[in-house]
Amino acid sequence: MPATKAYAALNPADPLVPFQFDRRETRPQDVQVEILYCGVCHSDLHQVRDEWGGSIYPMVPGHEIVGRVIKIGSEVKKFKVGDLAGVGVMVDSCRTCKNCKKEMEQYCVEDMTGTYNAMERDAVTIAQGGYSSQIVTDERYVYSISPKLDLAGVAPLLCAGITTYSPLRYAGVTKGMKVGVVGLGGLGHLGVKFAVSFGAEVTLISTSPSKQKDAERLGAHKFLLSTDAQQMKDADSYFDVILNTISANHDYKKYLDLLDLDGKLLIVGLPPEDPKVKPFALLKNRRSITGSMIGGTKETQEMLDYCAEKNIVADIEIIPIQQINEAYERMIKNDVRYRFVIDMKTL
Amino acid sequence: MPATKAYAALNPADPLVPFQFDRRETRPQDVQVEILYCGVCHSDLHQVRDEWGGSIYPMVPGHEIVGRVIKIGSEVKKFKVGDLAGVGVMVDSCRTCKNCKKEMEQYCVEDMTGTYNAMERDAVTIAQGGYSSQIVTDERYVYSISPKLDLAGVAPLLCAGITTYSPLRYAGVTKGMKVGVVGLGGLGHLGVKFAVSFGAEVTLISTSPSKQKDAERLGAHKFLLSTDAQQMKDADSYFDVILNTISANHDYKKYLDLLDLDGKLLIVGLPPEDPKVKPFALLKNRRSITGSMIGGTKETQEMLDYCAEKNIVADIEIIPIQQINEAYERMIKNDVRYRFVIDMKTL
Repeated sequence: MPATKAYAALNPADPLVPFQFDRRETRPQDVQVEILYCGVCHSDLHQVRDEWGGSIYPMVPGHEIVGRVIKIGSEVKKFKVGDLAGVGVMVDSCRTCKNCKKEMEQYCVEDMTGTYNAMERDAVTIAQGGYSSQIVTDERYVYSISPKLDLAGVAPLLCAGITTYSPLRYAGVTKGMKVGVVGLGGLGHLGVKFAVSFGAEVTLISTSPSKQKDAERLGAHKFLLSTDAQQMKDADSYFDVILNTISANHDYKKYLDLLDLDGKLLIVGLPPEDPKVKPFALLKNRRSITGSMIGGTKETQEMLDYCAEKNIVADIEIIPIQQINEAYERMIKNDVRYRFVIDMKTL
Repeated sequence: MPATKAYAALNPADPLVPFQFDRRETRPQDVQVEILYCGVCHSDLHQVRDEWGGSIYPMVPGHEIVGRVIKIGSEVKKFKVGDLAGVGVMVDSCRTCKNCKKEMEQYCVEDMTGTYNAMERDAVTIAQGGYSSQIVTDERYVYSISPKLDLAGVAPLLCAGITTYSPLRYAGVTKGMKVGVVGLGGLGHLGVKFAVSFGAEVTLISTSPSKQKDAERLGAHKFLLSTDAQQMKDADSYFDVILNTISANHDYKKYLDLLDLDGKLLIVGLPPEDPKVKPFALLKNRRSITGSMIGGTKETQEMLDYCAEKNIVADIEIIPIQQINEAYERMIKNDVRYRFVIDMKTL
C-alpha cells in the first residue's frame, strides 16, 4: 500500500501536524497521482475546525489537487504515466443514479463521496485529501490538465473555478449580458475572469472600495460599492445575472433588487445564518435565486479545457506546507490574493 | 361622464358602502364594459384595510372583472358592442419600456397602473375597480372572453388564473412532470387545474387532510400532508416544480427539500414576514426559487383562450354585492370554495 506523507488535523482545536497514512493499492480503474500543488479552500478551514459539524479525524484536507500520474490501473483509458492530472471536490459517487448518469455526480442521489472528511463507499476507509504526497482515485474523478497552463494556478480551478464556472454557464451568461459578481475572494476573482471571458459586461459588487483597482485589473468593467445607497439605487433592475460568492452572513434582498426582468441571483456560498428573502423582490421582474454546487465530472473537464484555451488560472500565493496554519489565520482576515496554493515539494 | 354605481371603502376601518362616481368619457382607444361579475381577491381585503400601506380612499376594489362591451372608441379594433370582455389587475402601463414592448406590462419599468388603489397615469384620477356597474379601459388592457365558458367562473381567471398559469408556463410544465401545488385556495385550485391540463402528475401539498378529497375532485393525482414528517421525508427531491400559493407566514425550506435536480419553487404569494432560505437546500440539486406576478396582456389573453379550449373556469360561490363585507370575514377564515364572485346585477 502506497505510504503517504501528509499534514492532518487530529482534532478541531489544534494546528495541523505532519501525518502519515496508507493510500489504497491501485485498482484496475485507478490513477495514482503524485501531488505537486494543492489549493487551500475556505471550506478546508470550516471542516478542520468542525464548523459544519460531523468532521472525521484524522483529517487530511485539500480538494484542489494537481500533479503528475505515476501509476495507472490495467483498465485506465484516459491517462498514461507522466500526464498532468487533477482531482477536485469529489472522488466517487454511486455512478448509477439518474444524476450520475448525466455526469452530474455532485448531485448524486446517494450523495457524492467528498475528497476528504468523508467515508469512502466501502464505508470503512476515511477519504483523505490533497495536503499529501499522492492520491489514488478512480479515473472517472480525475481530470486531464493542459501543460500550457501554470500548474500551481490550475489547482484552485478544481473547486473555486468549477464552482463559479458552472452556475455562470447554467445561467446562460453570454456576450453583452450584464453580470454582477458579489465579493472578490477565491471564488469571486475567478467569477470575474469567467464572466469577462464569456463576453459579459462585468461589475464587481463589493463592500470594500479598495477592491476596485484589483477588480479592474482582473477585467471587470464596472465597480459597485454596495454600502453606497445611491449607487445601489442607481443600479436597481440593472443586471441579468449576479453571482453571489459571499459566505459571511448577509441579506439576499439588496442583490435581488439589482436584477432586471428574469434576472438570476446565483448562490454558491453557505453563510452560517439563513438569509431572508423578500417575496415582493422576487415577484418584481420575475427574479430567481438559484443554488449551485461545484460541477460534475463532464463539466469540470470542460472548464479545465476552456481555461487552457483562454489561458485562465487563479491568482495565487504559493506557500510551503509548513505555513498552512498561518495561512488559515490569514485566510480568516481575507489576507490573500486570491488563493493560497501549497507547494507539495515542501512536504 | 358615465355615472357609475359601486361599493367602496371610505377608510381602512369601516365596512364597504354604496358609492357613486364618474368614469371617464370613452377615448378613441377605450372600451366601456358593463360589469356582470367581479371576483373577490384576497388582495382586495389587504388593500381595503390598508394592510400593505399607502391605500387610496375612497377605494372601489375589484380586479377580476367580466362583462359586456356597451360602447367603443373610434379607434378600437379588438371589440365591438355586445362582445364579452374582461379586465384584470392592470389598466395601463408606460407602453414604451422594454418590458411593455414585450407585452409583459406587469413588469413595466415605470410600474403598471393597478385597476384600483392606484393613480391613473394622468396623476390626478384615482383608478377604481370592478365592484361597480361599469368600467372604461384602453383596449390594450381589455381581454376577449369566449361565450363558451361560464361567465361568472371566468372572472377569477383575470387574477387568480393568470397568476398561476404564467409561472407554470414559465417553468415549462409539461406532460409527465411532477408538479406540487402548495395550498388549495383561490390560486391553488386553479394551479391544480392548469398543471393537470398541461399533463403533469399533480400533487396537492397541504397542512389540512380535509383538502385531499377536493384536490382529487379537481384532478390532483396525489396528496401530500405537509405536517406529516414521514410523508415529507419520503417526498424528498421528488418534484420538478412546486407552485407555492401560500400568503400566510411560512418557511420556504421544507418545500425546497422536495425538489429534484434543477427543480423550481414558484412564488406567487406575499407573506407579511420575509421567509428564510437555507442556502444548502438551494445548492443541493441546483434548486431555484422564482417569483411571478400575474401576467402580461399577451399571456392573459392566451390563458383565457386556453381556458375556453380546455373548459377551465374557477370554482366559485356567487354572492350579491350586499354580502361583500360578510364575504371578507369568511375569506379570512378560508371559508370559500374557492372564490367569491359578485353578481353585479345586485348592485
